Amino acid sequence: MIKVGIVGGTGYTGVELLRLLAQHPEVELAAITSRAETGVPVADMYPSLRGRVKLAFSDPAKAPLSACDLVFFATPNGVAMQQTRQLLDAGVRVVDLAADFRIADIAVWEKWYGMQHACPDLVAEAVYGLPEVNRAAIRGARLVANPGCYPTATQLGFLPLVEAGCVDLDHLIADAKSGVSGAGRKAETHILFSEASDNFKAYGVPGHRHLPEIRQGLARAAGREVGLTFVPHLTPMIRGIHSTLYARISREEDFQGLFERRFADEPFVDVLPPKSHPETRSVRAANTCRIAIHRPQGGDTLVILSVIDNLVKGAAGQAVQNMNLMFGFDECAGLSQIPVLP
Amino acid sequence: MIKVGIVGGTGYTGVELLRLLAQHPEVELAAITSRAETGVPVADMYPSLRGRVKLAFSDPAKAPLSACDLVFFATPNGVAMQQTRQLLDAGVRVVDLAADFRIADIAVWEKWYGMQHACPDLVAEAVYGLPEVNRAAIRGARLVANPGCYPTATQLGFLPLVEAGCVDLDHLIADAKSGVSGAGRKAETHILFSEASDNFKAYGVPGHRHLPEIRQGLARAAGREVGLTFVPHLTPMIRGIHSTLYARISREEDFQGLFERRFADEPFVDVLPPKSHPETRSVRAANTCRIAIHRPQGGDTLVILSVIDNLVKGAAGQAVQNMNLMFGFDECAGLSQIPVLP
Amino acid sequence: MIKVGIVGGTGYTGVELLRLLAQHPEVELAAITSRAETGVPVADMYPSLRGRVKLAFSDPAKAPLSACDLVFFATPNGVAMQQTRQLLDAGVRVVDLAADFRIADIAVWEKWYGMQHACPDLVAEAVYGLPEVNRAAIRGARLVANPGCYPTATQLGFLPLVEAGCVDLDHLIADAKSGVSGAGRKAETHILFSEASDNFKAYGVPGHRHLPEIRQGLARAAGREVGLTFVPHLTPMIRGIHSTLYARISREEDFQGLFERRFADEPFVDVLPPKSHPETRSVRAANTCRIAIHRPQGGDTLVILSVIDNLVKGAAGQAVQNMNLMFGFDECAGLSQIPVLP
Amino acid sequence: MIKVGIVGGTGYTGVELLRLLAQHPEVELAAITSRAETGVPVADMYPSLRGRVKLAFSDPAKAPLSACDLVFFATPNGVAMQQTRQLLDAGVRVVDLAADFRIADIAVWEKWYGMQHACPDLVAEAVYGLPEVNRAAIRGARLVANPGCYPTATQLGFLPLVEAGCVDLDHLIADAKSGVSGAGRKAETHILFSEASDNFKAYGVPGHRHLPEIRQGLARAAGREVGLTFVPHLTPMIRGIHSTLYARISREEDFQGLFERRFADEPFVDVLPPKSHPETRSVRAANTCRIAIHRPQGGDTLVILSVIDNLVKGAAGQAVQNMNLMFGFDECAGLSQIPVLP
Repeated sequence: MIKVGIVGGTGYTGVELLRLLAQHPEVELAAITSRAETGVPVADMYPSLRGRVKLAFSDPAKAPLSACDLVFFATPNGVAMQQTRQLLDAGVRVVDLAADFRIADIAVWEKWYGMQHACPDLVAEAVYGLPEVNRAAIRGARLVANPGCYPTATQLGFLPLVEAGCVDLDHLIADAKSGVSGAGRKAETHILFSEASDNFKAYGVPGHRHLPEIRQGLARAAGREVGLTFVPHLTPMIRGIHSTLYARISREEDFQGLFERRFADEPFVDVLPPKSHPETRSVRAANTCRIAIHRPQGGDTLVILSVIDNLVKGAAGQAVQNMNLMFGFDECAGLSQIPVLP
Repeated sequence: MIKVGIVGGTGYTGVELLRLLAQHPEVELAAITSRAETGVPVADMYPSLRGRVKLAFSDPAKAPLSACDLVFFATPNGVAMQQTRQLLDAGVRVVDLAADFRIADIAVWEKWYGMQHACPDLVAEAVYGLPEVNRAAIRGARLVANPGCYPTATQLGFLPLVEAGCVDLDHLIADAKSGVSGAGRKAETHILFSEASDNFKAYGVPGHRHLPEIRQGLARAAGREVGLTFVPHLTPMIRGIHSTLYARISREEDFQGLFERRFADEPFVDVLPPKSHPETRSVRAANTCRIAIHRPQGGDTLVILSVIDNLVKGAAGQAVQNMNLMFGFDECAGLSQIPVLP
Repeated sequence: MIKVGIVGGTGYTGVELLRLLAQHPEVELAAITSRAETGVPVADMYPSLRGRVKLAFSDPAKAPLSACDLVFFATPNGVAMQQTRQLLDAGVRVVDLAADFRIADIAVWEKWYGMQHACPDLVAEAVYGLPEVNRAAIRGARLVANPGCYPTATQLGFLPLVEAGCVDLDHLIADAKSGVSGAGRKAETHILFSEASDNFKAYGVPGHRHLPEIRQGLARAAGREVGLTFVPHLTPMIRGIHSTLYARISREEDFQGLFERRFADEPFVDVLPPKSHPETRSVRAANTCRIAIHRPQGGDTLVILSVIDNLVKGAAGQAVQNMNLMFGFDECAGLSQIPVLP
Repeated sequence: MIKVGIVGGTGYTGVELLRLLAQHPEVELAAITSRAETGVPVADMYPSLRGRVKLAFSDPAKAPLSACDLVFFATPNGVAMQQTRQLLDAGVRVVDLAADFRIADIAVWEKWYGMQHACPDLVAEAVYGLPEVNRAAIRGARLVANPGCYPTATQLGFLPLVEAGCVDLDHLIADAKSGVSGAGRKAETHILFSEASDNFKAYGVPGHRHLPEIRQGLARAAGREVGLTFVPHLTPMIRGIHSTLYARISREEDFQGLFERRFADEPFVDVLPPKSHPETRSVRAANTCRIAIHRPQGGDTLVILSVIDNLVKGAAGQAVQNMNLMFGFDECAGLSQIPVLP
């Protein structure tokens, strides 16, 4: 049993962490903080947790975080970088679900996130928490940067091709669709039910913060820079990401076999049989990524379909997976929920 | 470990049973039948079960059902009554999720279900599987009639009042709203996405099959006939039932206390604090009923709000709860999933 | 052609007024105000109006409202009462879509709306704009209080019974369900897509502001006080209200005929044949109320089903209907859109 | 006034035709046929049309179609080709909303539609009814092949680039998303509410029937064959198509200006300002296509966003637009509805 704290637990990634951790056999929830909700029982805000989570939100300044073995940050960008050093110095390990430690190039991070970074040296130390790429490094990490939701679905779909070097790396295209929970639990007009329901739109086409994160991950896999056009869309569902990926073939391969071999030992990546079309609901509330490989009309363009639940494999579930690795637990501990369908 | 079979596993209650049973510590799935899908791996039809359920659908005629300890019928009305005697004779216990054994008065059943009953004697033996009412009888039952979804939410909300005899029993009103999965997975026009989405309607106002079932349950609790107006509605969500119940007060009581005492030891009924409004999503994918008690404006009419997930506490979850009781397992075994929110 | 102004045009009733008025043969849109959006072309905020509405939002202090023939207030409660006298004095007629002039009893209004009323004398002058009740008075009115959405659907469903005095007037029940647009276009957490979608709940059961409005209307029709239990619910759709009404019969009548006669000449009330179940989509984007009458099981309780589009017959459409009456236009002018289905 | 008949009026394109034609100033609805619903008043099946359409469905064999000036076929593929010659011979003009006359290459058509064509000579005569391309020919046509929904959104988005020859014509990509009404009103399991709601998936990636239609249209515009990867997706909304188009720049241009000039005189194509993201709801229930042009990060890949309502500009609205051209009416007659938002 380890003691775990959550900083900023009122958003969707926070409540999803609570759902998963409350069912985890190796975890004791020690504290969950929220400045705005200090003193409020968590289950008053989220009745789904009634009888399952007894904690109240505590004042971030007073919470016993330094007595924890691990602290998750489920905070807006820019918060974790202010508090992580102190926790690490106290011997606490940290998983940040926001973007503070994801981008190695500080100048790139500062440009896309519009603020000065508080601790570039910790960025250098942080491990990018995509277990399918960095499993060994995550095991030994003090500080893990949990990947973004689009980056998880998109990288997992492109990785076998990029590692094998068999597609045109200068013109990758990721057409990604997200459920509305990906925008968080903020009181903003554009994600109101009456705005987002029965509606579909692209957004951020000129540039989205997940673009440099995906490009960094693919460049590391390729050993060179890659060119990527990334177009996110908002689709009227709560959970789920569907990345439709396009890549021009530069060298013939058994592409189905390439994916199957690459993910053969991965507990949370499921390569579907040829001609499959994964549905987002097939991973709803579970820590799974399902991938299908297509080559329409036998042409020179591959189409990869990759789905995850943005709140699980795209956020809280992957964070728990990282925790499992960091503390030597079974990688699947607390993550065995079967997807909820329908 | 017991061996369990499912007859008719291709509908929503079937796949929900599979989701729950595949995670149950005391159950070995021995067979799941479907005439139409014989030979098809279950996970091909429901990719959410890939890697978790290895079974293929088997021919009902050949499935090793008589070697099971328990068989669930997740079939249309009228199927279980044809096959139950044979199973019981072979020493197999049975839980029917359809309506074949729910109504004690055979004439009433035949009128509402439009067919002749095949085994009235077994109806007499069957135990109505609402554990909050019949726990002891369920423990010893060979044959359990699993309640309908509307009847579960509605009876649990009315029971304390009816048992206490403190409301006008001749004029109860149940205004119930169901998600679309309650209509099953049938290829019918009126439950198409483009018909049921962004739309709300009542249906079956002249008479719905769950009316006699609810009336029977309430009459047993009251020790007399009750009068009930029952109006079901279709609401554009997948899972969930919200019963809004109206009862005229005939004798003053501490109504909040009445409900809290009645359900104090119930693991799956949660009485909310005064002035609460339970949401269906607070029980999504979990075996919980949440209830709130209101007395608007201090008048003489009580308003009870009762929510369940129709596929869990309203079907498959309650069936597993009944199984747990029948076989002496922990009543909560395999039913500890936390609701999925958002 | 009359000149029309709209105060507060950025909400859903505002944009719906624009949709209807831009297609109205007798109306010239002269001004639409918004403090926050001054200078922004309306079509930039609502691209659905591109090419159809050329106006920009103007500063409320500078807009040529006093040169209008009619001004609609599509503002939060409490705004119209501050500005109406000045407009009336300038000879401008006013329709308020908010609640400032709906409740005749000032003390009741102040209790439910939590503020002091600015002009009780104008409340006394204002005509409650339900044409099916007050057509003649609306024609001559300077100031019309446009009814609320729940009150429109609920009163139209109860009126024939209450006017005929054939039901128990002390125990009426209205179980009403609204689409989310009824909550307006405010950045509030509880109406986010990820909160309101795939979810159903009651709200305001202890007391909702539309309760006194409905009671007032029914009391006027009855010539005495009435008792009403009113329970509103939020249902996951954009537009639509479905009121399910319950009344105990106190005198036998041909209830179907009663409704048909009462609304025989009403252009916007459609009494359906016996055993019908009106769907909210059957009135989507149109100024129609459809009503069905049921007497389940031949008992003593009537069930009336009444549906409207909350933004049309429940707000902007009814306001245009009132305008048509006030200015002697064809009552249906600009309101002939056929419902959008699916 | 012309007399118009509709063959096969029970589907979504049929009811949408009725909605538009019932409000059209130059049209008299003479007949609407349905074998299955013969004798049923249209308004019984579609209550949204109560009071607006008096017709009953008539037997196709007895309907006075040959007395019409124009007949629309809103039938499954393969029906119109059996009946068109007889109507043309009787002097009736025909618009087919299905695919029978869309593909000039009969062998290609027969391969994708899996049947033998009944009248190749009429295919040769038919005019492809995309007014933005074939306006003059449509005016004189006896027989118009109304384009598919995906083909309309996709061709309009690609056309300026393809006509100008400034992009790589061998590697066009169309990632298209459709609301569920695009699948029609058929009782099929995969488009049930409980299957399609809160879910997102691609389908038909190996090959979709709209692929050859789009390729044909773009090839005609280019004067050569084009290469296209077309991936359709199902998104949980009723109406709307969003095509996200990718094209590699082969020659620099003022791309925004190119689109604005190309569609300057088009009444139903709206080129949005730079950096816009059109939403499907901005065209809901209207005959408009809105297009935005992006060049992310100043790279060599253009991203074009194109939205329509699949039932209007993608089907019934475009059919009415074609009718207007064929009979010399104002091209916008009966098509001036403002989009319904929210």
